[in-house]
Amino acid sequence: MADQYPPTGDDKRPTAIPVLRWEEPPEGPVLVLLDQTRLPAEEVELVCTDASALVEAIRSLAVRGAPVLGIAGAYGVALAAARGFDVDEAARALEAARPTAVNLSVGVRRAEAAYREALAGSGDTATAAAAAAALTAARTLHQEDAEASARMAAHGLALLDELLPGGAHRILTHCNTGSLVSGGEGTAFAVALAAHRSGQLRRLWVDETRPLLQGARLTAYEAARSGMTYTLLTDNAAGSLFAAGEVDAVLIGADRIAADGSVANKVGSYPLAVLARYHHVPFVVVAPVTTVDPGTPDGASIEVEQRPGHEVTEIATPQVPVTGAGGGIAVAPLGTQAYNPAFDVTPPELVTAIVTEEGVVSPVTPEALADLCGKARRTPTD
Amino acid sequence: MADQYPPTGDDKRPTAIPVLRWEEPPEGPVLVLLDQTRLPAEEVELVCTDASALVEAIRSLAVRGAPVLGIAGAYGVALAAARGFDVDEAARALEAARPTAVNLSVGVRRAEAAYREALAGSGDTATAAAAAAALTAARTLHQEDAEASARMAAHGLALLDELLPGGAHRILTHCNTGSLVSGGEGTAFAVALAAHRSGQLRRLWVDETRPLLQGARLTAYEAARSGMTYTLLTDNAAGSLFAAGEVDAVLIGADRIAADGSVANKVGSYPLAVLARYHHVPFVVVAPVTTVDPGTPDGASIEVEQRPGHEVTEIATPQVPVTGAGGGIAVAPLGTQAYNPAFDVTPPELVTAIVTEEGVVSPVTPEALADLCGKARRTPTD
Repeated sequence: MADQYPPTGDDKRPTAIPVLRWEEPPEGPVLVLLDQTRLPAEEVELVCTDASALVEAIRSLAVRGAPVLGIAGAYGVALAAARGFDVDEAARALEAARPTAVNLSVGVRRAEAAYREALAGSGDTATAAAAAAALTAARTLHQEDAEASARMAAHGLALLDELLPGGAHRILTHCNTGSLVSGGEGTAFAVALAAHRSGQLRRLWVDETRPLLQGARLTAYEAARSGMTYTLLTDNAAGSLFAAGEVDAVLIGADRIAADGSVANKVGSYPLAVLARYHHVPFVVVAPVTTVDPGTPDGASIEVEQRPGHEVTEIATPQVPVTGAGGGIAVAPLGTQAYNPAFDVTPPELVTAIVTEEGVVSPVTPEALADLCGKARRTPTD
Repeated sequence: MADQYPPTGDDKRPTAIPVLRWEEPPEGPVLVLLDQTRLPAEEVELVCTDASALVEAIRSLAVRGAPVLGIAGAYGVALAAARGFDVDEAARALEAARPTAVNLSVGVRRAEAAYREALAGSGDTATAAAAAAALTAARTLHQEDAEASARMAAHGLALLDELLPGGAHRILTHCNTGSLVSGGEGTAFAVALAAHRSGQLRRLWVDETRPLLQGARLTAYEAARSGMTYTLLTDNAAGSLFAAGEVDAVLIGADRIAADGSVANKVGSYPLAVLARYHHVPFVVVAPVTTVDPGTPDGASIEVEQRPGHEVTEIATPQVPVTGAGGGIAVAPLGTQAYNPAFDVTPPELVTAIVTEEGVVSPVTPEALADLCGKARRTPTD
């Protein structure tokens, strides 16, 4: 199998993917987004001049992924304030754009609180100062997320050095965990990227991640953009790789981590954990401390979202004309029921380590996780 | 989750799928094929009036699957003979239609040998008698395959009764193993169908089977056609089903079985075997004795075919317009390399039982397999 890109550090292209940035041209401030619905075919940017354009971009999934939605929401409030729109109205519209996205609401409220606090100051310049405060809040959130990514990457790389002395790692990943969903370089993908930059990544194996193909569409794009050596595979081909001894470690992200260390992540993560255990390969979860939910005691307490069956019975891509009820191409008989859980739960005994921005938990125990969360609450950024 | 079809035996529709049949209308004999490239959207039949039409149908995958290709090849020779075409020329063209399909060649040669033997007889009626002999050979092969299916189904059902007393089986299957690839009702699917008919099938879980989606397109079609209760899932969602205790047994077919009992089957079978072992669920392989290859000593000796990457990097269905180099819709960045093994190998220690038309091998040992093959060689049909 020929390499897609040279495995050395010769690629000099910028690797940062401009998922979202604030700009201030003479016509007034704007939020520029990479339109993720057009990936990987095209890199097209959307320029939002007001919060309602951003609401539309969020609704259409042009921007998606928990941390980056929070950052976008905060910038949206700053944009409304800087352009002189009704900040309260903009904040409510942004929050409602994807009501179940907790990070979006948190980001919106953080910028809004900064705006209100500054507005409470007196004088003619209060509005301008409040707008500036909202922007500062958005930038701080953005920066914090980027720093958390960088710290996760550093801790993760150190862990790989320890688990796999000698470098030349062949890492298998699932779903999309890079800069498209982060203010920085992401979670699991950021660790693989750090390994790549230090010359220790031999290959990134990219699970396509059915049904929505985030691996094929987005992780392969991020890997190509970063000049990494990568190879795409169907999720069910991972078993052959393990059997052939071609996987040195599995790195995945997490949607939620229970207090006992059970990890909810994109469906397909748990089978990888079982395969990794069977083949004595480390299975490593990379996620910020905020992913640990002390209110969820164990894996059985995690409610698994069941998603619409048409994601399985139809294939949808931006280029595909609408034929099925779900908007894609029907690949199963009409009326076929599908089992389509959004994520699965990996028990702590199958997780080699959880890497966070505050450090690594290994072995994964409730006590070690609780210690880490306590440590995070005592850090200055909180 | 509501059931797609009532789980009882109330469905009175004919369940036999007319994958291929010989007809003799006044205009002359024809071979009628179900066009599998149009499934599951449409049931369209192709009428072949000569061997070259059949060659085209085989090339375009309108008819596919090892046993059924052999039967089609035999009927193709009979068709050429009955229509007065050059039988040798037809036989060579049929064999070359898919040169790596061993069954096709075996079926063609069996009908051709019967034709030649009858032709060696003297008299004016020798040509007609030879054509009749070729047709008889084709019908015998067809019948033998149907009988082997029925015997595998009976042995498999008895095994399920033994492994899972009490009935109400929830069976997980992978790829396509029913009447679309068989002269009868297939291998693993035939066992599930027997369980359904005896009121013992609670649900058939159908893996979609990436990259070519044989499960979604063909097995779901066969299940719907048979009135079974079935549910489709992405291959990577099987882990969640096992974890939830929703799988009572895995039933799969086999492309080849080595002398030590290693089973080569569609990629994605091995991960199911590992999951089944981790969850103490029986993993059962159903295949005719001819699948056992005494010339292949073990799993490591099985060469795994690597298929084109575009099967992974592009999505192809009959309804999709051509955009990618492979003829489908590109879902990964251009130039993405893919790892695309056609099948994987499950070692004998993960296989609970191998069900054949001659009986069940369990536990799977080289000695028990050799005994079974010896027994098969002594049966009258050989």
